[in-house]
Amino acid sequence: MSSCFGKDLKLSLFGESHGVGIGITIDGLPAGFEIDLEEVEFEMARRAPGKSKLQTSRKEGDKVEILSGVFNGKTTGTPICGIIRNKDTRSKDYGKLKDLMRPGHADYTGTIRYSGFNDFRGGGHFSGRITAPLVFAGAICKQILKSKGIEIVSHIKSIGEIEDKSFDYTSIDTKPLESLKYKELPFLNEDLEKLAEEEIINAKSSLDSVGGVVETAIVNAFAGIGDPFFDSVESTLAHLLFSIPAVKGVEFGEGFNMTKMRGSKANDEIYYDENNEVLTRTNNNGGVLGGITNGMPIVFKTAIKPTASISRKQNTINIGTMENEELVIEGRHDPCIVGRVIPVIESACAICMIELMKGRFEWML
Amino acid sequence: MSSCFGKDLKLSLFGESHGVGIGITIDGLPAGFEIDLEEVEFEMARRAPGKSKLQTSRKEGDKVEILSGVFNGKTTGTPICGIIRNKDTRSKDYGKLKDLMRPGHADYTGTIRYSGFNDFRGGGHFSGRITAPLVFAGAICKQILKSKGIEIVSHIKSIGEIEDKSFDYTSIDTKPLESLKYKELPFLNEDLEKLAEEEIINAKSSLDSVGGVVETAIVNAFAGIGDPFFDSVESTLAHLLFSIPAVKGVEFGEGFNMTKMRGSKANDEIYYDENNEVLTRTNNNGGVLGGITNGMPIVFKTAIKPTASISRKQNTINIGTMENEELVIEGRHDPCIVGRVIPVIESACAICMIELMKGRFEWML
Amino acid sequence: MSSCFGKDLKLSLFGESHGVGIGITIDGLPAGFEIDLEEVEFEMARRAPGKSKLQTSRKEGDKVEILSGVFNGKTTGTPICGIIRNKDTRSKDYGKLKDLMRPGHADYTGTIRYSGFNDFRGGGHFSGRITAPLVFAGAICKQILKSKGIEIVSHIKSIGEIEDKSFDYTSIDTKPLESLKYKELPFLNEDLEKLAEEEIINAKSSLDSVGGVVETAIVNAFAGIGDPFFDSVESTLAHLLFSIPAVKGVEFGEGFNMTKMRGSKANDEIYYDENNEVLTRTNNNGGVLGGITNGMPIVFKTAIKPTASISRKQNTINIGTMENEELVIEGRHDPCIVGRVIPVIESACAICMIELMKGRFEWML
Amino acid sequence: MSSCFGKDLKLSLFGESHGVGIGITIDGLPAGFEIDLEEVEFEMARRAPGKSKLQTSRKEGDKVEILSGVFNGKTTGTPICGIIRNKDTRSKDYGKLKDLMRPGHADYTGTIRYSGFNDFRGGGHFSGRITAPLVFAGAICKQILKSKGIEIVSHIKSIGEIEDKSFDYTSIDTKPLESLKYKELPFLNEDLEKLAEEEIINAKSSLDSVGGVVETAIVNAFAGIGDPFFDSVESTLAHLLFSIPAVKGVEFGEGFNMTKMRGSKANDEIYYDENNEVLTRTNNNGGVLGGITNGMPIVFKTAIKPTASISRKQNTINIGTMENEELVIEGRHDPCIVGRVIPVIESACAICMIELMKGRFEWML
Repeated sequence: MSSCFGKDLKLSLFGESHGVGIGITIDGLPAGFEIDLEEVEFEMARRAPGKSKLQTSRKEGDKVEILSGVFNGKTTGTPICGIIRNKDTRSKDYGKLKDLMRPGHADYTGTIRYSGFNDFRGGGHFSGRITAPLVFAGAICKQILKSKGIEIVSHIKSIGEIEDKSFDYTSIDTKPLESLKYKELPFLNEDLEKLAEEEIINAKSSLDSVGGVVETAIVNAFAGIGDPFFDSVESTLAHLLFSIPAVKGVEFGEGFNMTKMRGSKANDEIYYDENNEVLTRTNNNGGVLGGITNGMPIVFKTAIKPTASISRKQNTINIGTMENEELVIEGRHDPCIVGRVIPVIESACAICMIELMKGRFEWML
Repeated sequence: MSSCFGKDLKLSLFGESHGVGIGITIDGLPAGFEIDLEEVEFEMARRAPGKSKLQTSRKEGDKVEILSGVFNGKTTGTPICGIIRNKDTRSKDYGKLKDLMRPGHADYTGTIRYSGFNDFRGGGHFSGRITAPLVFAGAICKQILKSKGIEIVSHIKSIGEIEDKSFDYTSIDTKPLESLKYKELPFLNEDLEKLAEEEIINAKSSLDSVGGVVETAIVNAFAGIGDPFFDSVESTLAHLLFSIPAVKGVEFGEGFNMTKMRGSKANDEIYYDENNEVLTRTNNNGGVLGGITNGMPIVFKTAIKPTASISRKQNTINIGTMENEELVIEGRHDPCIVGRVIPVIESACAICMIELMKGRFEWML
Repeated sequence: MSSCFGKDLKLSLFGESHGVGIGITIDGLPAGFEIDLEEVEFEMARRAPGKSKLQTSRKEGDKVEILSGVFNGKTTGTPICGIIRNKDTRSKDYGKLKDLMRPGHADYTGTIRYSGFNDFRGGGHFSGRITAPLVFAGAICKQILKSKGIEIVSHIKSIGEIEDKSFDYTSIDTKPLESLKYKELPFLNEDLEKLAEEEIINAKSSLDSVGGVVETAIVNAFAGIGDPFFDSVESTLAHLLFSIPAVKGVEFGEGFNMTKMRGSKANDEIYYDENNEVLTRTNNNGGVLGGITNGMPIVFKTAIKPTASISRKQNTINIGTMENEELVIEGRHDPCIVGRVIPVIESACAICMIELMKGRFEWML
Repeated sequence: MSSCFGKDLKLSLFGESHGVGIGITIDGLPAGFEIDLEEVEFEMARRAPGKSKLQTSRKEGDKVEILSGVFNGKTTGTPICGIIRNKDTRSKDYGKLKDLMRPGHADYTGTIRYSGFNDFRGGGHFSGRITAPLVFAGAICKQILKSKGIEIVSHIKSIGEIEDKSFDYTSIDTKPLESLKYKELPFLNEDLEKLAEEEIINAKSSLDSVGGVVETAIVNAFAGIGDPFFDSVESTLAHLLFSIPAVKGVEFGEGFNMTKMRGSKANDEIYYDENNEVLTRTNNNGGVLGGITNGMPIVFKTAIKPTASISRKQNTINIGTMENEELVIEGRHDPCIVGRVIPVIESACAICMIELMKGRFEWML
């Protein structure tokens, strides 16, 4: 099994990078929600490659055709299937890679897993391209959440060694973050944006790639979402986040830093504010305690490894000849995918929240 | 929903810290496996509190009674239910906490989630004590894996600021790590063990607590385990790890560090060794690519926050009076639970591996 | 996998007939529901054997001990585990059956399935006794439904050839049926009750057994429960009903009879009554269309085969000697289990309804 | 939730009768299986309407386009998505039905379930047309089973009152049944075929419809498939069968008839034949005991109600005006769908068997 997720909101993802098409079926959305298709396209475009010199020049149309589940512009409540046909694929670039296993990619593990029958072209079902349908699903979920005041915002915490420390975990004011979604490298600190851009161009010119960390907040989520143990917010969200290719780490709130704090500091003191709302002074726990939201922003960081596809010569194996061999990957590659992963991360958030809230809130039925 | 996990290996966890009993049902284990009950007890003891001055003095019997699924000492293939009766519980210590929400705990989130009907005594269903049945399940899974050569080993990477850097991600020799399981603070570097002990006693004497990071390796797992996207090894393992109370971060291989590497370094070069076995020179990806194992050790780190229960005075809310109030938690607490969490983490590993391998390997049926 | 059910209401069933104990964990019930334990015991007693000469003289205590999930008499919202210890078991009666496969039982199929490691005593995990915990779960679910006006009632449609035709599918008046639950053979027509009793004693005296058909109605369920295709009311209910040992057929409304009607008769005409409520003139479809309830009583019939355990000599195989052999089953057997299966069927109904309604109705959270 | 099925073989069904398209995603098929596309089309054609005067004249192309999961003619092991575009749809025929709820259809229940946002045209997601993708999935599963010797065969047991009694439950010789799949009304007894044809034309000319019963056998399935209780063969198969629109009853082996037998007759005596194979003299239990196959043919009957769409005037409600009203359904209808449902039933069988066998048999990985 590989590509199904969820219990109350069910996703079924399919497709290969160079096959006929890719897509997703979303089952369990509330009926009667009016989808803003322009907004969906905007989110798809955020993920799409080919926008600037910082990215691969490969263009993907990423135009989703909705086959079902929408009637008169509104969700019917029955499954929505959206598909994207593959177009700008240069299969010959990849043909020679059949037997040469690209390091850092799933070529070898996929070949073992599927006994060599997997579609190897461009990573096949393992391609980052398969996250496009996820963004389609996430974009719809995001709109539903937004209609209830729940917002998801992200910024780049770091690119390589360049790190941005300006983020307030306790704020529920998303205004300053809203414009970030129009940026290719959404840093809060614009000076760092320039530095990061240089770092990426630098890596590209040395036929290399860089990674980074994305920090995300889900703001205005109600207290009481999630469950202890296996259906905790952290478990469900991490499950989805680690499904995204290139993600190698996830931490909530202060995460690994928290292990260096004393309990007296790490514990977020609780208080009633002047409106009798329950808040915490700090938000080291990232808005989740015992697997359940406490009403503070749900904050987490996601580690994105440097793009595995690089133009440099690498050592690897040839499973045809069963010999060690050198490999130079041709074709077009992103020197850094951190910016493009953000809408995918936010989609994972939105999907996770609907999955956990579905069947708990009347308006979601 | 809260306490069910799995598709091929199904777990159903139940119980409250101060209720009649706690336990777990495990459905889907292979038939005919002879369980070493002493080994199970050993694992339970690793998790149990009350072993030394570094831990809470509260003693838990943690003696599991097996109600079903074992016949003539062997698994029947039908569900195993193991229960532990609660004994040494001083409920009155907790009585006064009904309305005072302990910071860093699930008191407030649980109250909201269950509309105030949750058993609040000692954290109820949110208590770390509920991980005891998980260790029971994990101990059995571990034995099954071990019978096929798959071993799970852990060491403490850090306690507070004290950090151990001596770990080789590519080694499949678990010998040097085996004795660690007999230690309360299993550091590879014994000097650090002493320092960490001091740090913990220090924290305790200042009525405070410390956290840490555990590093774990699953060694000798076959290549080809796991699936792309939603059933990836990383997704499944992270799902289970984030179910463990106090876990706030998970990273695979070099994880967050990897975001600071260039792709040319991060990519683990692949090679055939002299026996034609496929290995990688480094293991920055932690043995998983595209969600699937590559045969290298599966390596990951888990961040454990400092124990939320501290004896210091803290500010919080009283949901009865709806006023801000000071709180002093009485009773017995662990100044550091990092060592005790290790068998829980290893149990999560073992459960995850059986879940992912079940139905893929004839011997597991 | 064998013994887990549900998505929103999760059941995990365990135990063997002659093992230490049997039980069930129920995860997903609403918090704050006050359980009437006497009512639960009454339902357990309906299923329990040993009540009269029509049944086996084997007595089962069937006293459930609740280990978790109930606090101050109310559900906490976290998992409820109920266990029953096995007592009056004469294991030696069964010892000789290890190699002789009882016809009509799961001895042979269970042995193949679990490679001979299953607990064969008294049918082990396949025993009808394992339905006792199901009735425990069902009894709680029934109370929750009843608190919202939803009632489940059953009568015996037939025992052997003795058939009762007096049942009105369209009535929502459960009064005339309420007293049936106090009867061992709940026929609507009391004359048939006498005849059926004779038929059963007759079978018993010829060392044989009889089966029958149970008809059940779920009354006052709202319109709109269930989903098209795989989560239809019929699919979910049939799934649970066919889990009950001895069930060999399930039909909704007029079921197999409906295949002999013309469409013009089979289609239930819809109308507004004087209160503008939507009703149907007939209820041939048994209250379900397109997998979804229409508000009419959900009516279905369940076929119960004659008890497989009979005292007569039977031909079978000896898997030890691998020879054909004659078998006489000693011990105590029910000549007819139809009456005792009724509370199990009603439990399946109640569980099914909670599973399908959970997350759809605010009061159920 | 509505349209997802399975744990090891996952299906995700989507589409509305008059929307853009319908389809299915199948996740979990073994890698490397060569699909015979002609055979798939043959199965699709068996279900397709418009073949003769016994059926609706509405033609559906039902040409499946495979978007993913097949590479070089073989399954890749990753999800297969197959879609069918809707063409010959006369939406205006249905426009006037928006407010008039067709008796026997899901119009009213679907409207309630989805708060009026469902696509009502031609039944929308509730249309029998949505079974076309199921047959696509089933046709592939059937081929996989056949490659291992497991065959699925069906005949018509009855149309209206016309009943065929010539079927041997114990035979594993599928030869005499093989030609049935080329027939529109696959009766074993050809005289009955003629009578049934008359009955259908008769019904059609009186603007009415007829139902019937289909009997199916899964032959050469291994002993030991399935699980006790919730994952029994009967539970899983019934779950799928009751998902098929128009199915109102399912019985295994002798089913409801078995309730009229004494235990001594109903129990299928077990014996070793001359090859030491384990067989039963009779097969009243339909090849399943304790939820698990015993190696005999799995035999069951499915009740198909008369087509709900009839041309006769019917009484119903108008939910727009909230008044009782007369309805005449125009458009083209099948007077009998029994023959066309057969490939759907067989698909359900094939899907069920793969779901239950997956992860139990090495060759299926």
